[in-house]
Amino acid sequence: MARVFNFNAGPAVLPLEVLQEAQVELLDFKSSGMSIMESSHRGKEYDAVHAEAAANFKKLLNCSDDYAVLFIAGGASMQFAMAPMNLLNAGQTADYVNSGAWAGKAVKEAKLIGQVNVAADCAKDIPTRVPSEQELKLTPGAAYVHLTSNETISGAQWKTFPKTEAPLVADMSSDILSRPFDINQFSLIYAGAQKNLGPSGIALVVIRKDLAERASDKIPAILKYTTYIKKNSLYNTPPCFSIYIMMLVSRWLLKQGVATVYQRNVEKAHKIYAAIDAGNFYKGTAVREYRSDMNITFRLPSEALEEQFVKAASQANLKGLKGHRSVGGIRASVYNAFPMEGIDALVIFMQEFEKKNG
Amino acid sequence: MARVFNFNAGPAVLPLEVLQEAQVELLDFKSSGMSIMESSHRGKEYDAVHAEAAANFKKLLNCSDDYAVLFIAGGASMQFAMAPMNLLNAGQTADYVNSGAWAGKAVKEAKLIGQVNVAADCAKDIPTRVPSEQELKLTPGAAYVHLTSNETISGAQWKTFPKTEAPLVADMSSDILSRPFDINQFSLIYAGAQKNLGPSGIALVVIRKDLAERASDKIPAILKYTTYIKKNSLYNTPPCFSIYIMMLVSRWLLKQGVATVYQRNVEKAHKIYAAIDAGNFYKGTAVREYRSDMNITFRLPSEALEEQFVKAASQANLKGLKGHRSVGGIRASVYNAFPMEGIDALVIFMQEFEKKNG
Repeated sequence: MARVFNFNAGPAVLPLEVLQEAQVELLDFKSSGMSIMESSHRGKEYDAVHAEAAANFKKLLNCSDDYAVLFIAGGASMQFAMAPMNLLNAGQTADYVNSGAWAGKAVKEAKLIGQVNVAADCAKDIPTRVPSEQELKLTPGAAYVHLTSNETISGAQWKTFPKTEAPLVADMSSDILSRPFDINQFSLIYAGAQKNLGPSGIALVVIRKDLAERASDKIPAILKYTTYIKKNSLYNTPPCFSIYIMMLVSRWLLKQGVATVYQRNVEKAHKIYAAIDAGNFYKGTAVREYRSDMNITFRLPSEALEEQFVKAASQANLKGLKGHRSVGGIRASVYNAFPMEGIDALVIFMQEFEKKNG
Repeated sequence: MARVFNFNAGPAVLPLEVLQEAQVELLDFKSSGMSIMESSHRGKEYDAVHAEAAANFKKLLNCSDDYAVLFIAGGASMQFAMAPMNLLNAGQTADYVNSGAWAGKAVKEAKLIGQVNVAADCAKDIPTRVPSEQELKLTPGAAYVHLTSNETISGAQWKTFPKTEAPLVADMSSDILSRPFDINQFSLIYAGAQKNLGPSGIALVVIRKDLAERASDKIPAILKYTTYIKKNSLYNTPPCFSIYIMMLVSRWLLKQGVATVYQRNVEKAHKIYAAIDAGNFYKGTAVREYRSDMNITFRLPSEALEEQFVKAASQANLKGLKGHRSVGGIRASVYNAFPMEGIDALVIFMQEFEKKNG
């Protein structure tokens, strides 16, 4: 079997050994005579998977017992609604940092639910970036401050996080566990799983338990964080198979350590950015200091060349390099599971493409 | 590999050939060099899966273009909230039929959202049942009437559906596509996938497009049916792998035909009910005319015997027969994918157990 190099932005490449293990036991999980997909969510087989997934992520994120680690169906888009439904009560204002397409979607959803102040807006800046801490116009007594740690589409990433008086909330979908960070700076983080954690259709949510208590009694139970906290994400039947894959990914991450994964991510990104910066043919899309280690965005001298680049790369088994349809250009998404050999192959491809077309 | 007979209520047994196909292509979907789990939800490989899943379910349910077939993250519990959020506006009343645990959960969630009239309540009746059409106290001008087509826990099932003036809404989680029915009687049906359709964490939702338009502009986009209708369930990244499995199940269903599947289901249920009724040792839990073809519930002369029954059955590779923790007893869930050989094995086991302990 020929596996390609998969630069998809999400759903994205998963660790090969995770897929292999899932494949081997797909019809018979741990000699239970059934697939984990067919296993009761109240049975001992799934229970062990669920408990290990939660424990592993708690360990990987270095959370104290002040936090709950939750698995919630739906991706970050569901959290765009759940966060304000739970945390933004009538009469309060939430500060949102608009740094790009995903932050913008979070803002739009929050505005349907409560009072929103856009604390900074650089969503349309070219080159792309996230704001500096100094730019933020925060509301005194805000319900919370929301930011997007990495903009998957623009390729801009917060390198350090602002210190805020109000609880800090972050959508970390596209860079969670790609680098060490202090969870204690945050009151709520969430991440759609389909980039660094597992399959699409589920989010990892980590929330300070005391913050979750803020929610009104009027919120539907299924949309309330406290429901998931009290029932350990087993209030209803969770997405068991997705959590199983996330558990396998969490094991893979623990085995390597986040620090090592981060070092490798920096090296991977550095190699591609170096290839971009080597001449004038490629142009990075993001302001240098905010360049993402996960989603590397760049342009070629013309859209025609970009199209040719994507096509030729695909023929060379470098798949998914087309930039998001809303912005065009090239995007190499190189999440934790993306292998170094794929980076080296891309760099060589870029050099050769430039030689032929530069 | 020894596959067991899996009587789990959900997550539940899937067709063996579905799992086998998923296993074969888990690392390399259709020579794409990646798993369907790693494939972009905007790419041609996943697009074909998504389109086929929607088309197959539309065909299986015999829907006209007045209906939209949607895939929504979360199970039926999410629909307990979404249905009233979208369809029950201020000043309106929704009629809910409370026929058991699941209907009760739907009522509870709806009451947080709007005005609810419980049109009939037989949730606590023993033997268990669903109400007759005559019992329903419906509200003139109700926003909709909600029922639960099959109560997974009590083992009671609507055999025919009431004719209502208001739009009829049904939670069909545990019996969807187990029998033919006229979709035109309903304005909205939904089903958590983990019983007859696929893995847990996703719901199949079929809604009349005109009804969906009723939703207020204030609902978060991700919780609005029109969002899914307009974007063909691709507004955000859907649970791609789950939809892929559902697509394989839909193919399996089409190959056999719902009428054939239904005939087999009736035969399967009949065999077990006949074993129950053969003597006085086993006692069916549901009123005879409402006995479910999907979840067959019965009691033994004592709880001690029930415990022994479940344990001995498990040793004989008949797994998951324990009744729901809230009601006790025995429950054999025999969804579409449950094989006839497992039924025969259970019947023999029941006869032998009775001989030894009767």
